[in-house]
Order: sequence, then structure tokens, then C-alpha cells
Amino acid sequence: MANYRPFMSDEGIHQLHTTIVLDEHGEQREISLTGERPLTIYLDKREIVTLMTLGAQPELLTLGYLRNQGLVDTLTDIASIQVDWDVDSVAVTTHQSKDNLDQLMSRRTVTSGCGQGTMFGNLLDSFETLQLQCPEFSAESIYQVLEALSDYNQMYKQAGAVHGCALCRGNNIDIFIEDVGRHNAVDAISGWMWLEDIDGDDKVFYTTGRLTSEMVIKVAQMKIPLLLSRSGVTEMGLRIAKQIGIGMIARAKGKHFLVYSGNEQFMVQS
Amino acid sequence: MANYRPFMSDEGIHQLHTTIVLDEHGEQREISLTGERPLTIYLDKREIVTLMTLGAQPELLTLGYLRNQGLVDTLTDIASIQVDWDVDSVAVTTHQSKDNLDQLMSRRTVTSGCGQGTMFGNLLDSFETLQLQCPEFSAESIYQVLEALSDYNQMYKQAGAVHGCALCRGNNIDIFIEDVGRHNAVDAISGWMWLEDIDGDDKVFYTTGRLTSEMVIKVAQMKIPLLLSRSGVTEMGLRIAKQIGIGMIARAKGKHFLVYSGNEQFMVQS
Repeated sequence: MANYRPFMSDEGIHQLHTTIVLDEHGEQREISLTGERPLTIYLDKREIVTLMTLGAQPELLTLGYLRNQGLVDTLTDIASIQVDWDVDSVAVTTHQSKDNLDQLMSRRTVTSGCGQGTMFGNLLDSFETLQLQCPEFSAESIYQVLEALSDYNQMYKQAGAVHGCALCRGNNIDIFIEDVGRHNAVDAISGWMWLEDIDGDDKVFYTTGRLTSEMVIKVAQMKIPLLLSRSGVTEMGLRIAKQIGIGMIARAKGKHFLVYSGNEQFMVQS
Repeated sequence: MANYRPFMSDEGIHQLHTTIVLDEHGEQREISLTGERPLTIYLDKREIVTLMTLGAQPELLTLGYLRNQGLVDTLTDIASIQVDWDVDSVAVTTHQSKDNLDQLMSRRTVTSGCGQGTMFGNLLDSFETLQLQCPEFSAESIYQVLEALSDYNQMYKQAGAVHGCALCRGNNIDIFIEDVGRHNAVDAISGWMWLEDIDGDDKVFYTTGRLTSEMVIKVAQMKIPLLLSRSGVTEMGLRIAKQIGIGMIARAKGKHFLVYSGNEQFMVQS
């Protein structure tokens, strides 16, 4: 059922507030502030979770959250996604709810990142059988991606306090999403890929955030074999990436980066 | 009941792994990696949550998590806290469980930060009636705290991918805790304050992380009236801080900082 689209609202908001602060000398400055709003997801009238979000892509965030948590199996199960900021919530209706929703929601894992993320169900177990093939890459190809990304990170540059994630193919940036939480940004990208029926296997996933276990698992679920981060890596994130076969490049800024996983696929120019 | 202490294990681990990476020229380098381990909390044999943690202070983290989520009311309710890394879990026994645990756990809010944090129950509502008084402060007093903190952030300096939080009084650092999640670090500090019966009202709370709504609420629950961050601020975090009366200083690095809240208490030297 190609090109199926649930009925979706279009309630993305561009939240960029300004405020007056004092600098260390007591001088007034006007600066930008990142917005942060609660968004409560209701799945067939059942309260699932409240996400704190920038709110730029609430429908994609909802879609990706439900997908990544395994709370909905296929896009065609979803009838509609309707965001209503008057009540800070999004109502999702399905053609048929999953039977084992109670069971899925009974286990929750609060993950690291710099927040305490949540995974319902068996997300942590889901990668056990997953195998991906990291493609060959070179310093030049990484620089191309980083160069293409330099126009993005708008909100970050203006107000800070957000993380950006991007889906890249060669030097094309297919989508770039910022949110107050990097897990939100990765969920929204996952939602977009689901909606547009995009494969991950020829893509590079970029994040400004750290590569913790949850980030690696989510990217693996999207079948993306190469991960690029501005920040660091945890031992568990690396272990999972190696186990699945994902290439992992971190501390990527300007002309520097470190290859943590996928060393054999790194084509060093002589 | 002063100086009550539950029976507690002492299973803090110092996780600092090393790995070989390739730099952009294909040269090998040995670098440090932050550890990240799951820790599942069982409260009276009931599975509450799995936290992903560095594992340095698992007992304090557990204590603070239960406190901040309102899952235990007083320290004296807790009989024992026993961490067992063989099964990545911590067993908490109480003298008497709360009656409304089911109700508290039925609502969950996944918060921002760069992860999706979780708050059970009514944490988001709990600050409605809270009022704190931001103390007077000067650039000199802020520099003193920052100077005292410069010896810390060890793990961060070595391996990155962690956040540090500290409880400061004048230029004393009472406690400094690092974790892969800044929410974990703030929970562990809260646990320590509970255990040692420490008041927050003469303290400054420092974090390397961003000041999102959840961070501000947690610090407010600890009755700490002044917040200092290396990073940025969200609009909702600032709104809550102003409502409660908390001073908020962010982007604090070296000799620079910005005062977001508590402007009237900022004593500008002439």
C-alpha cells in the first residue's frame, strides 16, 4: 500500500522567544530562547506519554515515537494524527490497536543521553538479531556531509539548548530536525522516513548529540549503517554499533573526526 | 529521626574504558570511553524503571530517583538499598509501600534535556505552590564557584559524553557527580542531600547541562534558590524559575555568564 498517508494535522510551531538578560558586567542584552512545550500523546484515547518538545514537527515526532517504541506496527494501522496545542496534546487513532499494548507499556527503560529517556517494551532487546553493513567512506565524503550540514543548526546557533539530527545521502541533507531533546529529533526523522517510505541503507545519520546506547539502537532500527556525531560516544553505544555492524564516527567538527567503528571501511587517502 | 540511614550497599563502579580509534588521517589513537550500564530499580520487588548510568553512585541515584518521582515519601520509609551489578539491578525495600504507587506510575512525562526524561506522577504540577528566595550574588561570587569547579569534571575531561552536577556553598563544592545523563546526576545529588539531611537554601546548584523545565523543577524540589549552568536555558525552564523565584545564571564559562533570572539580586560591582 504505497503512498498511504494517515490524516494528519499540520501544527508545527516555530518557537523562538527572546528575553532580556544581564551579562557579567550587568549590561542588558536581548537574547533568543528555545521554546519547550509539553505534548501528550493519546493513542486511541489512551494516554501514552508526555514529550517535552520544541514543537516544530509534532506529527512526525508522534509518528516516530510510536514507531520506535513499537506501539504501532505499520503506518497503515494509523488512521489520523491530530495535534491540538490548546490542550498540548496529540490524538492518534488507529484502525486497530495492538493487543499487547498493556504489556508493552509495563516495561520502561529510562535511558541516558543527558536526560533520562524512556523506552517501552523490548527496544533494548530488539537489536539482538539485527545486522547492517557499514559502507566504505573516506575523509572527503565525511567532510562533504559536514560541509552540507553547516547551513543547518539554525535554532542552535540562535538560541542554543537544542540538538539537531539529520538524514544525509552523499552531500544531500534529506531532512534536518532540531528539538530540545535529541531523542525527539531522531524520533521525528524516523517518523518522516516511515511516512515517506524512505530506506536507511544508503544514508548517513548525523547528530549533534552523544551516541549513547539508545541513539544507536534507534538508528539501527531505521537500518542506517553509518552514524556521524559532533559529540562523544559511550562504551555501550560503541559495543552495540560494533555488534550490529554500524560505522560510528564521532567528535566530527571542521576537519577533525574520529572513527570508532567501521575502521575497515575507512578508505584512507594516501 | 536524625541520622537515619537505610542499609545500603556500596557498589559504585568507576567505568572508564579505552578503545583504539582512527583519526581523520587514519592514524591510530587510544582514547577513553564513558561507561554506560543499565540499572533496573525494584521497589519492594516491583520493577519501576531501568536507568542508563555511569554507575559511580548507584545507591544515591536510586535514592534520589525515588525521592524526586515521589515514589517514597521519607528516608525513614526505606529499609534497604542493594545494588547487584551481576543482574544490573537495585533492590529497594521499604517499611511500608505507598498506597497510590499504581496511580503515580500511570502518568509519565518524557522530558526534554537531550534525552527523553521521565517523570511519574505529578512532578510537573508540584512546583505550583513552591516559592524560593534567590540570594544576592555578584560576579565575584560566581567566579569563585566556577574556579572551585574547575578541578572537577574529571570524567568529562577524560572521555566526554557525561554531564556533571554539583552542589556548591560559597566556594566549597559539597558534592560533584557525573553521569551519562544530567538527570541522573541531579537525582544522585538529591539522594545525597536526603541521606545527609542537607538543606538547599544556602546552596548553588551547578550543572554542565542545559536548564530545561525538568532540571529547574528538580532543583526547586531540593529548595536550592540559585542555579548555574555552563549551557543554555529553555523558555519553559526560565518561566518556571521566575515563577518560583529561583535565580538562573547560564552560559557560564571562564569570565563570562548571563543572568536570566534574579536580576534584582545581581550586585553589579562599580
